Amino acid sequence: MDAVEEFNAYREKMNNAIMAENNLVIKRLFNLDTNTYKAGALPSQTKELLGLVASMVLRCDDCIKYHLEKCVEQGTTKAELFEAFSVANIVGGTIVIPHLRRAVEYWQLLTQRND
Amino acid sequence: MDAVEEFNAYREKMNNAIMAENNLVIKRLFNLDTNTYKAGALPSQTKELLGLVASMVLRCDDCIKYHLEKCVEQGTTKAELFEAFSVANIVGGTIVIPHLRRAVEYWQLLTQRND
Amino acid sequence: MDAVEEFNAYREKMNNAIMAENNLVIKRLFNLDTNTYKAGALPSQTKELLGLVASMVLRCDDCIKYHLEKCVEQGTTKAELFEAFSVANIVGGTIVIPHLRRAVEYWQLLTQRND
Amino acid sequence: MDAVEEFNAYREKMNNAIMAENNLVIKRLFNLDTNTYKAGALPSQTKELLGLVASMVLRCDDCIKYHLEKCVEQGTTKAELFEAFSVANIVGGTIVIPHLRRAVEYWQLLTQRND
Amino acid sequence: MDAVEEFNAYREKMNNAIMAENNLVIKRLFNLDTNTYKAGALPSQTKELLGLVASMVLRCDDCIKYHLEKCVEQGTTKAELFEAFSVANIVGGTIVIPHLRRAVEYWQLLTQRND
Amino acid sequence: MDAVEEFNAYREKMNNAIMAENNLVIKRLFNLDTNTYKAGALPSQTKELLGLVASMVLRCDDCIKYHLEKCVEQGTTKAELFEAFSVANIVGGTIVIPHLRRAVEYWQLLTQRND
Repeated sequence: MDAVEEFNAYREKMNNAIMAENNLVIKRLFNLDTNTYKAGALPSQTKELLGLVASMVLRCDDCIKYHLEKCVEQGTTKAELFEAFSVANIVGGTIVIPHLRRAVEYWQLLTQRND
Repeated sequence: MDAVEEFNAYREKMNNAIMAENNLVIKRLFNLDTNTYKAGALPSQTKELLGLVASMVLRCDDCIKYHLEKCVEQGTTKAELFEAFSVANIVGGTIVIPHLRRAVEYWQLLTQRND
Repeated sequence: MDAVEEFNAYREKMNNAIMAENNLVIKRLFNLDTNTYKAGALPSQTKELLGLVASMVLRCDDCIKYHLEKCVEQGTTKAELFEAFSVANIVGGTIVIPHLRRAVEYWQLLTQRND
Repeated sequence: MDAVEEFNAYREKMNNAIMAENNLVIKRLFNLDTNTYKAGALPSQTKELLGLVASMVLRCDDCIKYHLEKCVEQGTTKAELFEAFSVANIVGGTIVIPHLRRAVEYWQLLTQRND
Repeated sequence: MDAVEEFNAYREKMNNAIMAENNLVIKRLFNLDTNTYKAGALPSQTKELLGLVASMVLRCDDCIKYHLEKCVEQGTTKAELFEAFSVANIVGGTIVIPHLRRAVEYWQLLTQRND
Repeated sequence: MDAVEEFNAYREKMNNAIMAENNLVIKRLFNLDTNTYKAGALPSQTKELLGLVASMVLRCDDCIKYHLEKCVEQGTTKAELFEAFSVANIVGGTIVIPHLRRAVEYWQLLTQRND
């Protein structure tokens, strides 16, 4: 199991444990989360980039990984991703750089396995 | 002078005072900031939306106002803006709602004066 | 109109403007927000205190005002509120103090008008 | 040594190293931290929940672990914890979800060892 | 009463209201806060600059005002302050710029009245 | 390879991968970052302490490690570092303590290898 599969397996296992508790507010929030990135007035590809940049400035590595995988699946290019990264790093400052390093490393993993 | 002009006038006055000090790092950061949103692999309209969402989740009203004005100038529609707002509010939580209220109020100002 | 009524009137006016747009994600988030603080395994009074402390450490004055009013309506005492404030100030640091000042000022307004 | 013991052992070792330096401000802050959660106008159980929610919205995994252990020791139930989690996730947004996953995993560890 | 006096008067009035409640944790935290910036291994001037930069990256205008006044009282020069500002803006990103504008405006007020 | 070398090797490898992309905004930001801490009106030693405290209150472990190494290289003493830590912990609250623990651990590593 590579690092991408490991991340997704842990995510799924714990999401299942959370859903099993049947807390209505948390279940609905998880549901809403999925709806948020569906195509509407904005294409899904743009929304995933918005989610990626929001995750970077708030410095949440797991959230970055999740949105990066979606972006790669949707065919967002390396140059486009780096421009989104540049917005996040200018708005959020150098404090975002360690997350940029891990994002680029994860992007390498995601694209190597799609070769 | 309406609230939009007032915001821009204060912004310009203080930016001039900051530039006058000739601190190289700050001057270059201001410069970089302008370059960040120029069209490249991503269109400028998408980059401004990225800047808007980053500003919302980091809860900076002045940054939101600045990017909102750019978005409106570039013809981003109300429905598109609300979808960007929805990403910011889901990622950042209800703590973002007071900033959403002020963003919608400022959007009303921006569009009424363009009538 | 005193400062409490003004705060609530602005809040209601802008919430109506937001609801009018019919963005499904935002509408459902507002809905969920209301459900979050209803009595369940924890009494509503405890949940409002949780919302208050979360708002303080995230330093959102409007969110603090909203939860403070709920706490006062539910009969939470001054001593209880100050203990919740103390948790927020220890966890979040002295950066929370300016928000504590404004919280205490708003609490004075809320309780004076209930005399 | 399981993950809970490991966490507590590291915490104690480093706290000792910090105390050994005799920096008065830091020592007093550590002291204050302990006092903050003692029963007063609010029961200790409520205060630990406040500390837990503050830790979640500020997204500090170690702080979450610490308060979770205290909550479990004090007999706070799973349903009560999930309602506190729901407040943190609504106020703080989906950015809190990865911390919720790790919190639920740590809660499982804490309760399995108490069987 | 100018803007500096107004800020200090409000600060003092609300601090007194907070102290009057006799919450031990909050009183001790206020006390510790004062001790933190006293000369020790580092001179007080450096500590105030540390407090200023911490306040800027955490984006707390009132905290910035407080530390700016201390820095000006201690003779910290405009060039030194701008270098501290530059660290805060690079580490914290362009999201700090609106706070920089207000900091420079307050610095102008502080130095004009000392003429 | 000890933990310090490992940290620096990963940092350098990923920085190279980032630079290789030739995104102008990111390259210039990395450049600016280096310039920010050079001696000017303030000595480099003070600027590194400012960077350290900013990193602590923003709770970025990698940024803390980077600035700690610079501080140790420049001869900043343990007592001086702990006073900088105390400012960060008072301003940022107990949420900073887990980062303080890891900072002290990394400082031990940095100084043992310099023996």
